[in-house]
Amino acid sequence: MGKGRIEAFSDGVLAIIITIMVLEMKTPSGVSLRALRPLAPAFLSYVLSFVYVGIYWNNHHHMLYVTRRISGGVMWANLHLLFWLSLVPFVTRWMGDSHFASVPTMLYGVILLLCGFAYWLLLHAIVANEGPASTLATAVGRDRKTTFSLLTYAVAIALALVRPWIAGALYGLVALVWLVPDRRIERELSRASRKGAAAEEL
Amino acid sequence: MGKGRIEAFSDGVLAIIITIMVLEMKTPSGVSLRALRPLAPAFLSYVLSFVYVGIYWNNHHHMLYVTRRISGGVMWANLHLLFWLSLVPFVTRWMGDSHFASVPTMLYGVILLLCGFAYWLLLHAIVANEGPASTLATAVGRDRKTTFSLLTYAVAIALALVRPWIAGALYGLVALVWLVPDRRIERELSRASRKGAAAEEL
Amino acid sequence: MGKGRIEAFSDGVLAIIITIMVLEMKTPSGVSLRALRPLAPAFLSYVLSFVYVGIYWNNHHHMLYVTRRISGGVMWANLHLLFWLSLVPFVTRWMGDSHFASVPTMLYGVILLLCGFAYWLLLHAIVANEGPASTLATAVGRDRKTTFSLLTYAVAIALALVRPWIAGALYGLVALVWLVPDRRIERELSRASRKGAAAEEL
Amino acid sequence: MGKGRIEAFSDGVLAIIITIMVLEMKTPSGVSLRALRPLAPAFLSYVLSFVYVGIYWNNHHHMLYVTRRISGGVMWANLHLLFWLSLVPFVTRWMGDSHFASVPTMLYGVILLLCGFAYWLLLHAIVANEGPASTLATAVGRDRKTTFSLLTYAVAIALALVRPWIAGALYGLVALVWLVPDRRIERELSRASRKGAAAEEL
Repeated sequence: MGKGRIEAFSDGVLAIIITIMVLEMKTPSGVSLRALRPLAPAFLSYVLSFVYVGIYWNNHHHMLYVTRRISGGVMWANLHLLFWLSLVPFVTRWMGDSHFASVPTMLYGVILLLCGFAYWLLLHAIVANEGPASTLATAVGRDRKTTFSLLTYAVAIALALVRPWIAGALYGLVALVWLVPDRRIERELSRASRKGAAAEEL
Repeated sequence: MGKGRIEAFSDGVLAIIITIMVLEMKTPSGVSLRALRPLAPAFLSYVLSFVYVGIYWNNHHHMLYVTRRISGGVMWANLHLLFWLSLVPFVTRWMGDSHFASVPTMLYGVILLLCGFAYWLLLHAIVANEGPASTLATAVGRDRKTTFSLLTYAVAIALALVRPWIAGALYGLVALVWLVPDRRIERELSRASRKGAAAEEL
Repeated sequence: MGKGRIEAFSDGVLAIIITIMVLEMKTPSGVSLRALRPLAPAFLSYVLSFVYVGIYWNNHHHMLYVTRRISGGVMWANLHLLFWLSLVPFVTRWMGDSHFASVPTMLYGVILLLCGFAYWLLLHAIVANEGPASTLATAVGRDRKTTFSLLTYAVAIALALVRPWIAGALYGLVALVWLVPDRRIERELSRASRKGAAAEEL
Repeated sequence: MGKGRIEAFSDGVLAIIITIMVLEMKTPSGVSLRALRPLAPAFLSYVLSFVYVGIYWNNHHHMLYVTRRISGGVMWANLHLLFWLSLVPFVTRWMGDSHFASVPTMLYGVILLLCGFAYWLLLHAIVANEGPASTLATAVGRDRKTTFSLLTYAVAIALALVRPWIAGALYGLVALVWLVPDRRIERELSRASRKGAAAEEL
């Protein structure tokens, strides 16, 4: 089974998720700069979610780039990830409209946690399919970034009930950690090509 | 005629259908966990439709993978399928907002039935185009799953008027049956490649 | 310049246009079958526009299939067509919500007329780019269907002010005429390939 | 890293941005031609933004056409551009709904300025990646059009506070300047191919 359509479908869904969130931002009720101020939390919420969906797209791109085979299981694991990501616009809107109230901010973290878990599931479904000697399996190794993210989400979810703005800051921190692109795959690719070149020289 | 653009267009339409449904879920009117409770039917309705559109995308992908020729008739059969699928967000919203009332739940089943019928039409338009000896024609054979689905939809539509929740459960049951990916095509593909290999050995 | 991205972008825009129109259909205000009745004009309007966008996608697909070169002019002619098509959801909603009132039905026809004219412009921009001996130029020849459509739109626009339902019926008639796929291009392609085969035999 | 998916994702996002703006145009409150008149500023605002997004798509297409390598930095520069472009529907709606009031018209210009700056950043990220001898680096040279645009935006933003319609006219003027497609890349491509042909003759 080719991976072209799974990429195309995921690109489509992620492009729509990242774009329709702006539809949720209401037109300001006045025409002055002051009328924009009540939109600040909604805008902050939008920026955070835009960056998150961008990170998922970026990592998804890298992951599928080194994937060679797609199974039925991988397809469903991918749809499962897209399901949780599709809820991001909903929690973005609630968190923004409620000006980062406790419960909406907590739910935002829960959805991020579920997205992170779904990504982890997808990664392992692909690795299981590719075999332990594949580029992806070697590249992933111990996954410190994911462990850090999931733990931080858990802390933020608990904190959201008492200090929602700290939770929001923690979501931002995780995003910053991921903004640095996942070099493991690129590094592993160049190592593999160097090995290949060395083998050819012999 | 190439099949690239029919895949791209269908991917686009399915990606939009599966994603815009989340726009229909209204922001909760409060900021407590209790404010989420009235959204439960809308969420359940969303999950069901997400799974259905995912199944259609998955099977559509498999079907076109083994298709070699696209005719004008196939293109219109495909648009006909996309038409009924495009109504899924509408009935999803009505069924969810009405908390699974009788008539909306019945209409949801009618649209599922029409989608199933349109898929069957498309499949047969492709098989007619490919010829009876094609991979797809051999793979499909007797189509028990489709017969089961259409019959169950019919029963659920009738039941919706007296016990809508049973109808909803039946829609979920059909989805579960389809969640198992259609192995017939994959099996037929590997059988064909084994035959090819055996022929080459001789 | 490759034609891959112009196809991808047009597919994306057409897929969104054809799909978001369903967002315009409001949830019925009751939960009975009778509550659906006021939606009938909106549904009829939706079906008509779905078929039209489907026809444009289909013909656009055929046209670009035999196109070999894309110039800056062709790109802007294509965006010009997409602009008028992007207004279809707006007039569809107005015509449906107003239950086919005179002015909205007239405006619907004006947009159809402008789409038809923009398609004709695009076709001629491509033919000018391909040269008079190209497959497309030979295939198009005298364009009776387009002339018929533009004339019928003009008549319907005038009639809409006194008998809007006749105008609606005329829009449906033009759609029916186009539902038959444009065989000219397919015919020309097979004629060209027969000629090629004959030339090879010599 | 291949450039296929960055093109596909950008095409998706741009196609959605250009299409959902029409959702913002409200159904007229009456069924007469006069009921359309209050929509005129919203329509004008829509046309302007449609042309701008079309220009960005067109130039993006040309730029990536001559790009051979995509790095992590280029990917984020591209997402950064898409972020500011994703705010275009928001400012389009505010400017249109407020009938080109001062502050909304000013904000529209600010977003155009940020889009222009983000495009410039992306261009330089790609050139840095491709090397100074690449087709793109030679084609870009002194970038007069961009300098003109950014300066005009700045003037228009200042003027918007006193004469918003002049600001609107200046936005239109910049669009007109860009409607002429960026021939530098096409020219450089044909020059490079002529050089290649000459080298082969020797």
